[in-house]
Amino acid sequence: MLIDGKSYRSIWLDEKDNTVVCVIDQQKLPFFFETKELRSVDDIFNAIKDMTVRGAPLIGAAGAFGMYLAALEITRQTNIRDHLSNAGRYLVSCRPTAVNLSLAVHQIYRKLENLTDPVRVAEQALKFAQELCEMEIENCRKIGEHGLKIVESVSNSKAGETVNILTHCNAGWLACIDYGTVTAPIYLAHEKGISLHIWVDETRPKNQGARLTAWELGKQGVPYTLITDNAGGHLMQKGMVDLVLVGSDRTSASGDVANKIGTYLKALAAKDNKIPFYALLPTSSFDISIHDGIRDIPVEERDPEEIMEVEGLSEGRLRSVRICPEDAKTANWAFDVTPARLITGLITEKGIFKAEETDIKKLFSDKSN
Amino acid sequence: MLIDGKSYRSIWLDEKDNTVVCVIDQQKLPFFFETKELRSVDDIFNAIKDMTVRGAPLIGAAGAFGMYLAALEITRQTNIRDHLSNAGRYLVSCRPTAVNLSLAVHQIYRKLENLTDPVRVAEQALKFAQELCEMEIENCRKIGEHGLKIVESVSNSKAGETVNILTHCNAGWLACIDYGTVTAPIYLAHEKGISLHIWVDETRPKNQGARLTAWELGKQGVPYTLITDNAGGHLMQKGMVDLVLVGSDRTSASGDVANKIGTYLKALAAKDNKIPFYALLPTSSFDISIHDGIRDIPVEERDPEEIMEVEGLSEGRLRSVRICPEDAKTANWAFDVTPARLITGLITEKGIFKAEETDIKKLFSDKSN
Repeated sequence: MLIDGKSYRSIWLDEKDNTVVCVIDQQKLPFFFETKELRSVDDIFNAIKDMTVRGAPLIGAAGAFGMYLAALEITRQTNIRDHLSNAGRYLVSCRPTAVNLSLAVHQIYRKLENLTDPVRVAEQALKFAQELCEMEIENCRKIGEHGLKIVESVSNSKAGETVNILTHCNAGWLACIDYGTVTAPIYLAHEKGISLHIWVDETRPKNQGARLTAWELGKQGVPYTLITDNAGGHLMQKGMVDLVLVGSDRTSASGDVANKIGTYLKALAAKDNKIPFYALLPTSSFDISIHDGIRDIPVEERDPEEIMEVEGLSEGRLRSVRICPEDAKTANWAFDVTPARLITGLITEKGIFKAEETDIKKLFSDKSN
Repeated sequence: MLIDGKSYRSIWLDEKDNTVVCVIDQQKLPFFFETKELRSVDDIFNAIKDMTVRGAPLIGAAGAFGMYLAALEITRQTNIRDHLSNAGRYLVSCRPTAVNLSLAVHQIYRKLENLTDPVRVAEQALKFAQELCEMEIENCRKIGEHGLKIVESVSNSKAGETVNILTHCNAGWLACIDYGTVTAPIYLAHEKGISLHIWVDETRPKNQGARLTAWELGKQGVPYTLITDNAGGHLMQKGMVDLVLVGSDRTSASGDVANKIGTYLKALAAKDNKIPFYALLPTSSFDISIHDGIRDIPVEERDPEEIMEVEGLSEGRLRSVRICPEDAKTANWAFDVTPARLITGLITEKGIFKAEETDIKKLFSDKSN
């Protein structure tokens, strides 16, 4: 996407030095736009762990580039399989909920495990990582096209009046490589001149809505209003929301969606107020080995410190303030699971599907898709 | 309640100078415990407006003391009715949702409007304000006794295992004069040795949960864990919540409850997970002139700045950090309305009632109550 007239992706290989992976430092946004150079598996691990990069598709891509950086370490003396398998396990361990990370790492491992020439391993790893990025971008573009139909139909049903969309967290282009999932139809609709307004949940504790989605939408000129995570129910009761669009970090075979904590509460409110609630996701976010998402999708518990402190800008620099008693006990689950029964549909690169086992099975059995 | 061994109320008349109203400065908690002296109607207005004092019963009491301070301004030349009526309108205008403020001010006005002697007006105003405080305290004590039965019954059904209670915002003794509404049964149960653990919603944007409820519970030694407003749904899905207890700023004749924004989302999650959800309130929070709470209870919109910034402690002092782009548009509704159908019961000083018009009518028609 364009940032002040220059085109960016959220991850790319350095033009001059192809042993360096570059990312936008999402910990500094919206206050400072900085890029960061990642030169080792550890750099990638830390960038994912501390959320310099975040969002299911992006951490998948970062994991793939991590395997490429691992491949660059291989010498004639290295046991290639052990080396790659250790690097893969290490990378996958850093965030458990989004399935894209483990999927990307496993896929790349399978491509590389039987190769013996270090140069070829690195070449193939890079090829895979770059193809993964292109595929994710293409998927987001298609998700945008399918999602656009939903936005257009709401717009038509309101005779062209402003469509009010509520979103939680950041399923924007920053979370993907380009376009985003939730934002893809929003950007397309905005380009087409459909009148839109986005309600942006701030998304405590890390405030991805306030910091990233607000920044993204602002840069693309899409009108938005930032609200607390508490506000969405009231807005829906008062008829101020037409559509809820969220991302997914892992989607079960039955259509349960693990997404940023708080998503489930918005889905309940949407259902209670008869407002369509869609999850937008590449099919790579499906984990069809899991049926009961609430029971079986692992939910990451993050550092309790993230609850005690809020980071923001003060006197020109990033600063954290403590918002509770010094000795407060806190807990920090990062995701929740929205049961399929609350989801109007799943908007994927392959079309719009019901959040139902039968529909989802079709998606995976039909090779022509 | 006790703070470090010393007994406090949230509002009181200065012992040495009975023209001074004292309050705990709730804007400084939990970082600094400071009291503030209020000496004029303006002081009271500003303390309510900027949330130095907050919570439905407490702002009712503050309003009554405001009328007393107005009465102290009366001279032989004053038109008493005009003076008191202007002061009352001014005080009531500062926060629209909680009904206690306007109720207290109207009641005191009716007591005073026919008096002609300035000394007598002031005496009666003070008497009313002090009686109101005593009544609110007594109401909270009784709410505690009725609520205790619910907590005991959950404890018994779990064979004495820890009862996990989720609460939103602060309906503690700080919001009242003493004991609190939600906290009254919690403190009683804790004293009785019932094993309890409280999930405290941080309650953006003003973080009354993180700042006030956490502080209160900590001071009384009640185990709690601070969570984001997003987390409650996940906890309920995972069986980690046995009971949800919230306050009310205004309760309609049909049992709809206006409370801090986000309460409705927790009520939906409680319903979805078959967890009992009670509102605890003095009957003074009823507004039986309103039937449809969602349509007719006025919801205060506060300063959008409260959404852009988070205040906390940094390097030993209170500081605000901006959490979003500088040019972000924000909106800040302070309350939402939970429909009666989601409420298991209303715990009042007169007993536990169904959130239903027929039951609530009984409460107001039966003079023996």
